[in-house]
Amino acid sequence: MELLKQRILRDGIVIMPNILRVDSFLNHQIDCSLYREIAKEFKERYKDTNINKILTIEASGIGIALATAFEFGDIPVVFAKKGTAKTTSTHLYTSKVHSFTKGIDYDAIVSKKYLNENDNILIIDDFLANGQAVLGMIDIVNQAKATVAGVGIVVEKGFQDGRKLIENQGYRVESLAIVDDFKDGTVILR
Amino acid sequence: MELLKQRILRDGIVIMPNILRVDSFLNHQIDCSLYREIAKEFKERYKDTNINKILTIEASGIGIALATAFEFGDIPVVFAKKGTAKTTSTHLYTSKVHSFTKGIDYDAIVSKKYLNENDNILIIDDFLANGQAVLGMIDIVNQAKATVAGVGIVVEKGFQDGRKLIENQGYRVESLAIVDDFKDGTVILR
Repeated sequence: MELLKQRILRDGIVIMPNILRVDSFLNHQIDCSLYREIAKEFKERYKDTNINKILTIEASGIGIALATAFEFGDIPVVFAKKGTAKTTSTHLYTSKVHSFTKGIDYDAIVSKKYLNENDNILIIDDFLANGQAVLGMIDIVNQAKATVAGVGIVVEKGFQDGRKLIENQGYRVESLAIVDDFKDGTVILR
Repeated sequence: MELLKQRILRDGIVIMPNILRVDSFLNHQIDCSLYREIAKEFKERYKDTNINKILTIEASGIGIALATAFEFGDIPVVFAKKGTAKTTSTHLYTSKVHSFTKGIDYDAIVSKKYLNENDNILIIDDFLANGQAVLGMIDIVNQAKATVAGVGIVVEKGFQDGRKLIENQGYRVESLAIVDDFKDGTVILR
């Protein structure tokens, strides 16, 4: 997605060795016009699927998922919460997620009321690196016996193994920008 | 806002003694059509102000703020992050917030890059009870020497003192639904 790539090159900040900050338009300050274009692109790429619901995870995924849901005709968005689930809970789907960024484990948690076997789900997130959050969401969709139509990512770190892990499970991944490398403090996009 | 009130009465779940869960349409699963109507209502109520930016706080505020920003002609949304700020940080606005719901303190954190003295800010959140999160955001706007045009809340607990604390500081509060009481497991709306 050319507009997004240009924006990353213009406003993305590389913090050595391999952190890309896109705070100014994606995940701290939100550029609404860019979000609309991102949403249109996800719609274009998944127009052949018959998705009826979007699943994302708090916090940065929520806005992107909502904008995308508006493009898909106001289908519902469910956002997984991050927390610590009680092992005794029978009304929640949970999946353990390891965050390499923060060096912690958390549970992705979704109420059983909001996913069911008839759902055809588009999973949306802002970043894909090691893929752990997306794999947790896929696990939850599978627990609900719902279908994963695909995964939509705004920025993928192409040099990490998230995509491979998801594709190896048989799922489609669409990323709107792929970072291939960081070199001398700049971003190399595919 | 009649549509919202009807929805709360239909789908809100009261957990005794005074917790209202609106997970099914507001803050776990998102009803996009309702979000559009909420956004239109905020636009209507604040159309006389000249706001240029929306400030909210993660996570549940983000979607509501984004939908509202779309109504206001794609103005930027900034969402405060919850965390623990380093006291030495010079590039962040922070404000200590006490969560009565969770019984913890956290810092609301906004990068100084995304607020400035020319900003006229609408503060948006899903719930208003004791007002601590909103007061934290007002504090941050004031640190930035920006202007608070007003506060927009989806569901206010009218029997708690959040509104009073905010109005006592001289700010306008618009809530789309006000819960006056809970009685025998049902919601009494104003």
